[in-house]
Amino acid sequence: MQTLRVDLGERAYPIHIGEHLLSSAGLILPQLDLPRVAIVTDTTVAALYLQLLAEALQAGGVDVMNIVLEDGERSKDWATLNRIYDALLGRRCDRKTTLVALGGGVVGDLAGFAAATYMRGIPFIQVPTTLLAQVDSSIGGKTGINHPLGKNMIGAFYQPRMVLADTSVLKSLPPRQLSAGMAEVIKHGLIRDAAFFAWLEQNMDKLLACDPQALAFAVRRCCEIKAAVVAEDERETGVRALLNFGHTFGHAIESGLGYGAWLHGEAVAAGMVMAAELSRRMGLITRADVDRIIALLRRAGLPVAPPEIAPGLVLELMRVDKKAEGGKLRFVLLDRIGAASVRTDVQDVLLRQSLASGIG
Amino acid sequence: MQTLRVDLGERAYPIHIGEHLLSSAGLILPQLDLPRVAIVTDTTVAALYLQLLAEALQAGGVDVMNIVLEDGERSKDWATLNRIYDALLGRRCDRKTTLVALGGGVVGDLAGFAAATYMRGIPFIQVPTTLLAQVDSSIGGKTGINHPLGKNMIGAFYQPRMVLADTSVLKSLPPRQLSAGMAEVIKHGLIRDAAFFAWLEQNMDKLLACDPQALAFAVRRCCEIKAAVVAEDERETGVRALLNFGHTFGHAIESGLGYGAWLHGEAVAAGMVMAAELSRRMGLITRADVDRIIALLRRAGLPVAPPEIAPGLVLELMRVDKKAEGGKLRFVLLDRIGAASVRTDVQDVLLRQSLASGIG
Repeated sequence: MQTLRVDLGERAYPIHIGEHLLSSAGLILPQLDLPRVAIVTDTTVAALYLQLLAEALQAGGVDVMNIVLEDGERSKDWATLNRIYDALLGRRCDRKTTLVALGGGVVGDLAGFAAATYMRGIPFIQVPTTLLAQVDSSIGGKTGINHPLGKNMIGAFYQPRMVLADTSVLKSLPPRQLSAGMAEVIKHGLIRDAAFFAWLEQNMDKLLACDPQALAFAVRRCCEIKAAVVAEDERETGVRALLNFGHTFGHAIESGLGYGAWLHGEAVAAGMVMAAELSRRMGLITRADVDRIIALLRRAGLPVAPPEIAPGLVLELMRVDKKAEGGKLRFVLLDRIGAASVRTDVQDVLLRQSLASGIG
Repeated sequence: MQTLRVDLGERAYPIHIGEHLLSSAGLILPQLDLPRVAIVTDTTVAALYLQLLAEALQAGGVDVMNIVLEDGERSKDWATLNRIYDALLGRRCDRKTTLVALGGGVVGDLAGFAAATYMRGIPFIQVPTTLLAQVDSSIGGKTGINHPLGKNMIGAFYQPRMVLADTSVLKSLPPRQLSAGMAEVIKHGLIRDAAFFAWLEQNMDKLLACDPQALAFAVRRCCEIKAAVVAEDERETGVRALLNFGHTFGHAIESGLGYGAWLHGEAVAAGMVMAAELSRRMGLITRADVDRIIALLRRAGLPVAPPEIAPGLVLELMRVDKKAEGGKLRFVLLDRIGAASVRTDVQDVLLRQSLASGIG
C-alpha cells in the first residue's frame, strides 16, 4: 500500500492506494466519529463489492446501512440525491454518521454532495471503484449533481476524510469503463507531465490488460498530480482549472447527447482532441503533437471525434458551462505535451473551425 | 451607520447596520466581482423594496435580474430552490454573478443555499428585511431548506460577503413579524447577556413601537453577540450550539404543525418557555426566572405555551433534529438568565413532564 496526502491544512486527508484494501476496515475505523456508516453505492458495484466492505466494517463493530442507487450518469440528479436524504433521515442518521461512497464518479459526486448538505455536512469517505474515480473524481472535493441545462451545475466543494483506492477491483471493470478512465489518466500526462505521457505510450497495453504494477504506477502518478494541483488551488481560482482540459468540449458533448449516452471519459477524450486541435490552430502545438494525442487515445479504446451534434448547439452549451466567466469562454489549451494554460483569447473563427472539422 | 465584523479569517465579513442603507448601493458595489447581480426576494418584500434596491444598483452600473419567490416558510423547499437555479441558468449567470438575498429568514436561507451550491458556490450578500433576519438568520452562514422529515435538514455553512441591515425597513413589518423577531432578540439576552435582558424588560414597548434608537441598539447588540459566537465556532462544534436555545422544541413545533402554521420566532418563543421550564425542573433556574421569561415574551406579543401537539410526536420529531447525536437528545438549558449550556443528561421523565405540562 502507498499513501499520499492532499495537503489542505485543516481539511488535509490521505489517499491510500493498494490491493485488497476493501476487505480490511482497519483504515476506515479510526476515521469514524461514531461506529455508524451509510454506504452509498450503485446496483452494479453493490453486486460485486458491497458485502465485502459492509462485512469488514461490521466485523469492526460498525453499524452499517446500505443505500443502493441505479447505475449511470442519469442518476446524478435531484431525485436520486433525495433518495439518499430520505434514507438517512428515515434511519435517523445524525451528524456523526459517516457516509462512504463505494463506486465510480457518479456515486462519489452524488454521495459527496449528500454528505456536504445533509444537516449542513457530515463526515465522508471515498472508496472509488473505477479507474476514473481512482485517478480523478474521488480526489479534490468536487461534488454535485447535473441540471437539465448543464453538467455538475449544482454542487459543493467538500473534501472527504480519506480516499481508499483498491486497485484490485479494477480487474472487474468492463473494458469500456477502463478505457473511459484512461482518458483522465492521459489528461494528467498531457497537462502536467510529458514523461508520464511518454510512459503511457509505452505501457498502454499493460494498463488495458490490468497489469497490477502498471496500474499501481499510473494511479499513483495521477493521484500525485491531482493532489498537488488541488493543494495549490482548492476552489479552482487558478491552476486547478487546468484539470478541466478537454472538459468544456466534453461537458457540451455529454449535455448535447443527453447524460449517459457517452461515458464521461469518452466525452472528455473527444473533448481533448478538440482542445488539442484548437491549440494547434492557435499555433501552440504542432500537428505531430495532435497526432500523438489521437494515437494514444485510440490505443486506449477511446473516441477521438465528437458525435454528431450541431456546432451551434455545442457553442450554446459551452456558454452555460461553469468555466465561462462574464459571458466569455475560457479554454484550457496545450502549450506543449505536458503543459497547459487557460486562455480567454480564442477567436470565434478558430473555435468554429475546430468544432466544424471535428478532429481537423 | 455602524459596522461590526464577523471575524472568520479568510471568510471574515462586515455587518453594516443603519437607516436608509437600501437606497445607496455604495456599500454593495465594491463587493462585486463583476457588475452582475441576481436579487432573490419574495412577493411581499418585492412590492415594498425591490425597486429601491434594484434601481440603486442599476444607477451604479450593475446588471440586475430579479427572482421573486412566494412568501413564507412553505417556500423553503427543493422546488423553490430549483426555481432559483433555473432562473440563474436561464440567464446564463456564471460564477462571478453575485446573489443578493433581500428578505427575511426564508429568503436568506434559500438564497444562501442556492449561492452555496450554484456552480459549487458564487458570491452572496445578505440584505435582511425582517427583525429576525437582521438579528439572527442573516449572520453566521447557516443556509438550507426544509425536508418533510425535519427543518433545515438540507443545507450548508456558507458565509455571505456582507450583511446590510437597514433598520428603517422594520417600520413596515406587520406586528406579528416584529414580535417573531423579538423572540430571537430575547434569546440573545437569555443565553449571553443578563444586562441586555434587563434592558429589554425596560424597553420592550419602545421596540414594539419601532423607536429608531431602541431598534438600532437591540439589533447591534444581537449582532455583536451572534458575531462573537460564530467567530468562535463557525461550524457549531461547541459554543454556537447555545444559539439554538429553544430551537429543539421550536423545530419540533414547526414540524409537527406543518411549516408556516406558526412563524419560526413564535415556535422558538414557546420552545424557550419549554426549555426554561426544563431548566427549572433540572434545578438550574428558579420559578421566578421562568416567570420573568414568560412575562417578557408575553409583552413581546409571543406565544408562551406550545400548540396542541401530542408530546409523543414532539419527542419523535426532536429525535431526528440535527442537534441529536448518536441517538442522544442534547438540550440547551439555562444556568441562569444570561448564561446557558448544552446538556445531554436530561432525564426522560423530566422531559416528558415539561412537554406534558406546557408552561408548567
